[in-house]
Amino acid sequence: MEKKNWSDLWLSYGKVTELGGARVLALDGLNAESRIIKSAVAELKRGLKGLADIELVTDGTVANSGEKITLIREPSIPKEGYEVVSSGGELKIKASDDNGILYGVFALLRHLAMGQSLESLNEKSSPSNPIRMMDHWDDMDGKIERGYSGDSFFFENDEIIVSDRIVDYARFMASIGINAVAINNVNVRGAATFLITDRFFSKVKEIQDIFADYGITLYLTINFASPIEIGGLETCDPLDEKVITWWKDKSKEIFEKLPGVGGYLVKADSEGRPGPFTYGRTQADGANMLADAVKPYDGIVIWRCFVYNCTQDWRDYKTDRARAGYDYFMEFDGAYRDNVILQIKNGPMDFQVREPVSPLLGGLKRTNQMLEVQIAQEYTGHQIDLFYLIPMYKEVLNFHTYCNEDCDTVADIISGKAMGNKNAGFAAVINTGNDYNWTGNDLAAVNLYGFGRLAYDTSLSAETIAREWVRLTFSMDRNSEDILVEMLLDSGKIYEKYTAPLGIGWMVTPHYHYGPSVDGYEYSRWGTYHRADHHAIGVDRTDKGTGYAQQYYKKNAEMYNDPDTCPEELLLFFHRVPYTRKLKSGKTLIQHIYDTHFDGAEEAKELAAKWDSIKNAVPSDVYERVAERFKLQIENANEWRDQINSYFYRKSDIPDEKGRKIY
Amino acid sequence: MEKKNWSDLWLSYGKVTELGGARVLALDGLNAESRIIKSAVAELKRGLKGLADIELVTDGTVANSGEKITLIREPSIPKEGYEVVSSGGELKIKASDDNGILYGVFALLRHLAMGQSLESLNEKSSPSNPIRMMDHWDDMDGKIERGYSGDSFFFENDEIIVSDRIVDYARFMASIGINAVAINNVNVRGAATFLITDRFFSKVKEIQDIFADYGITLYLTINFASPIEIGGLETCDPLDEKVITWWKDKSKEIFEKLPGVGGYLVKADSEGRPGPFTYGRTQADGANMLADAVKPYDGIVIWRCFVYNCTQDWRDYKTDRARAGYDYFMEFDGAYRDNVILQIKNGPMDFQVREPVSPLLGGLKRTNQMLEVQIAQEYTGHQIDLFYLIPMYKEVLNFHTYCNEDCDTVADIISGKAMGNKNAGFAAVINTGNDYNWTGNDLAAVNLYGFGRLAYDTSLSAETIAREWVRLTFSMDRNSEDILVEMLLDSGKIYEKYTAPLGIGWMVTPHYHYGPSVDGYEYSRWGTYHRADHHAIGVDRTDKGTGYAQQYYKKNAEMYNDPDTCPEELLLFFHRVPYTRKLKSGKTLIQHIYDTHFDGAEEAKELAAKWDSIKNAVPSDVYERVAERFKLQIENANEWRDQINSYFYRKSDIPDEKGRKIY
Repeated sequence: MEKKNWSDLWLSYGKVTELGGARVLALDGLNAESRIIKSAVAELKRGLKGLADIELVTDGTVANSGEKITLIREPSIPKEGYEVVSSGGELKIKASDDNGILYGVFALLRHLAMGQSLESLNEKSSPSNPIRMMDHWDDMDGKIERGYSGDSFFFENDEIIVSDRIVDYARFMASIGINAVAINNVNVRGAATFLITDRFFSKVKEIQDIFADYGITLYLTINFASPIEIGGLETCDPLDEKVITWWKDKSKEIFEKLPGVGGYLVKADSEGRPGPFTYGRTQADGANMLADAVKPYDGIVIWRCFVYNCTQDWRDYKTDRARAGYDYFMEFDGAYRDNVILQIKNGPMDFQVREPVSPLLGGLKRTNQMLEVQIAQEYTGHQIDLFYLIPMYKEVLNFHTYCNEDCDTVADIISGKAMGNKNAGFAAVINTGNDYNWTGNDLAAVNLYGFGRLAYDTSLSAETIAREWVRLTFSMDRNSEDILVEMLLDSGKIYEKYTAPLGIGWMVTPHYHYGPSVDGYEYSRWGTYHRADHHAIGVDRTDKGTGYAQQYYKKNAEMYNDPDTCPEELLLFFHRVPYTRKLKSGKTLIQHIYDTHFDGAEEAKELAAKWDSIKNAVPSDVYERVAERFKLQIENANEWRDQINSYFYRKSDIPDEKGRKIY
Repeated sequence: MEKKNWSDLWLSYGKVTELGGARVLALDGLNAESRIIKSAVAELKRGLKGLADIELVTDGTVANSGEKITLIREPSIPKEGYEVVSSGGELKIKASDDNGILYGVFALLRHLAMGQSLESLNEKSSPSNPIRMMDHWDDMDGKIERGYSGDSFFFENDEIIVSDRIVDYARFMASIGINAVAINNVNVRGAATFLITDRFFSKVKEIQDIFADYGITLYLTINFASPIEIGGLETCDPLDEKVITWWKDKSKEIFEKLPGVGGYLVKADSEGRPGPFTYGRTQADGANMLADAVKPYDGIVIWRCFVYNCTQDWRDYKTDRARAGYDYFMEFDGAYRDNVILQIKNGPMDFQVREPVSPLLGGLKRTNQMLEVQIAQEYTGHQIDLFYLIPMYKEVLNFHTYCNEDCDTVADIISGKAMGNKNAGFAAVINTGNDYNWTGNDLAAVNLYGFGRLAYDTSLSAETIAREWVRLTFSMDRNSEDILVEMLLDSGKIYEKYTAPLGIGWMVTPHYHYGPSVDGYEYSRWGTYHRADHHAIGVDRTDKGTGYAQQYYKKNAEMYNDPDTCPEELLLFFHRVPYTRKLKSGKTLIQHIYDTHFDGAEEAKELAAKWDSIKNAVPSDVYERVAERFKLQIENANEWRDQINSYFYRKSDIPDEKGRKIY
């Protein structure tokens, strides 16, 4: 095995000494029936040894003590679910399928690592979401679009790298319940277009095989213009017979060369990518054509809904980018094939710190839906600033869309429960790269871990997930653990305080998306305007404005439409508001802006101080890496505070009531 | 000769038919005495043939008609000056040196091309400035920093290209009186550091030889950290003995391998470049050390004064970037060696559309000075928007510094007249690249031509130069010529109208420097702030503010210090002014901003219409290329108009008196 230059993340299996001395357990039941069971057994052996100094005997012999662990196929357990039960000295892991067994093994090891004894184990679980997916934005030159953790560990110089690191990656993903991965960026250009050709099939197959060992299905992100770029056709019109035939033949080839591949992930007609609109066709025409091509192989087409006019004129006050997804996709609700899934970003804009839930989620009632979030911290601090994202995802999942009388939350929709469909799920744009610690900021690994756990079980609380991750990753005293968990839980609110106020979003350095630039996206083509003048700020998205609020079901539409009932954290998303408006706190809007920005910058400093206070509870290299990032976060927070406050003071001419320094 | 894929610019030598039929002239006097005389004779032969169908006989035979042209060395004529006189059927070109003869030949051909007959020629001229220099910002990868005309024709892939194009380039430069060229970017990085090593000497020598044929001295832009990067030393401290020795040895090598090279051009301690400040030394320490090293070979060190803090905090209201050049360099006036020339940008900031003249020019009284301007249109429209720069340069040259009782203009200083020195001159950052037409916009060639002509003779008017260029470049009727000349003369004022108002500068898209971004450089590290708030805009640079105005001699200091006497076009450079202040026109400042921006955008449209009106007077390819650029200019002007007006309306809350559309 090559020398590892990457960390073990939450699977370090450091010895938990209080579990007592050396023991021997015998494996019973399933053993080497399949590649996944083999992986499960190997992981179990490795984990028991590391965590508890337990020898797992897998050659059929019986342990002296008579103690054993039995892996059992139990058809009554839901798909990919598991039961881990301990009774009378016997430990059983039951599941109806291989993935369930593997997840049961990881559950057992997780409990051990968190300090539970084998004897007290008793857990039943099954996945909330059928598809639990990681989307890599890795380019084949080795760069990662919106990557903050180094370069790709899949690609380099337009070639595929197959390495032991990918095996560990697959283990990590399986340990948190991920069952689908797309390895290449949704912006498919250059060499990546040829991933579905003989130029790359054999190498893709190697990665696919590694993934298959851990129950992970590989998806390929494809270039909608492939018929032109690979096929030499003059069109990629989804209704053109030649194009249809080309995709049928190509899909046959792909599923033959890569048996078990999941299907395609597609970004079309979005930010310059080719798509059906070029030919006057609809998004449904495009998705369905591909869906028909992969249907014979049980393939799936995951079609992104991130379609909007990205060459808007800032002088155009009528067009509202927030409306775009709904406007383009709702019309064809019910017209998408059964093996099409629309992948919908959590908000209508683009992964901002604060957005309302996309009205497409649940707006669509006869269409398969997946929720897409971004654990890569593009707008949320570049894995420099601390931002624990799970609380945000919890809010999204718990949001009542009112698409049904009950069973109407986003969690209900993407689980398939709301509509009784099986092609549904939860996807994240991943935050990994080839940095030693995988995620740039060591603490950002909590989002990687947390997303998987949440996708598997959306009922888990943000605190539970944070505490699991802390305890699995570090060996720290309970007091330090509490401090770190609190830091994580507070982090998102703090970042939100010192960045763009009350849901208005953007105000970031163009292209780069870190650090403030209040007007950076104001006079641009991106449809991202705050329209601040001397009196007021915000875009009116009510029935008197762009009408965006009316894309929701009545109850939400009414709530958002009225500034008095609109949740205050979204006030500036839905309303144009004078600086002098009184908020629920009794403060004016402008004073709220000043206060939150002074407070947010202070709280960033406090986060850093808390990290210092647990310096001795973490390895010194981790401490140093993270402390360096907190230094940058404090600078960033100060810069946000001063730019935002100066901008609004200069514009409104209303001074801070507390007379603090504004430039 | 390779196939030419470049135009002949103003040296096309198209036949001027009205000069009459075929004739034969004999060459008398100088003929092949030197490489430069050879070039002069070849050019004369080529030009006479093309322009007037005149055969020049150079083999010593006498023409049947007895007509001849005589090249004569006449020691009484000033250095590089010439006389072209025609009397009694004999034409004489006289000069005291080779360059003078060459320039005389070009003068003769220029007059012919403009339609004068040989018989009526009578011109005496001699250069205003000893050094007339073009500075290329060409990088060795082939890119040009701030280049808007394609890539480099000197460099590609870290290698030097020697081609026939460089011969034509040298001819063009000689034809306008340029006698010095630096071929590589002042930001010397990577391979360019090694231009002064054996890796490149032989190729540099080839270019140097081509230049030498046309009387042009090659200068090399050097990396101040060369002792470290090439020499393997651990320091480049200019007072370190090892460093001093290294530069002495290196200079010896350079002047041996490249005899006749002019010396070094240096950007030190500027925008991240290494320099003496790193070692606690002064700019004088750095420049003098290099000057001593090249002294034995009559070498010159041209040291740029573009030194300022480029990591300023925007919250710092005390530091004023405009002060920096004066603050860093004045202290050592008189301490610079005789073979050091300080190269000073025309304004204290950086090539903005409107700046006051740098107070260093003439502030320094015992130091050699060169004026540096930028014909590459970085902040002046990227060779998309039309901007004839010569009127701006005329204003700079005519500026009275009051450094003497008389003989105190910038022209006087850089000519050497004001201080009686010989190391002085005028340099431009050039606007060429490997585009077919050399300058991206065909009309931008007027700046290339104009700079050379003006550097040679600062008394020429902007209109004279424009008319010369138009007539040499195109064959058009007088009416069309008048229209084009008027377009050129108006162009700068139009661009100034629709961009940043009244000398405040910046407000451009960061890094790119084309198109508006009012706050683009406001909250940044570059020292470029407008500080606009609800009431007022501008930086107070008077004695009550940063004191910058006091860097001028009293008369100018007093003029700038008082908003009533400050030239209005510089009002916002020197003063912080309320939007409601009445200007001389009777308009308020804010109304002036609105009016100029509406007018400027209209006038950009009119420029395009004028171009259309002379469509038939220019070659169709030229028409198309330029028309395409005018389209972009109109868009740009509209964008500037709307962003500037919206920005100030939103901030000031004062409406346009005329009720025009503001967003």
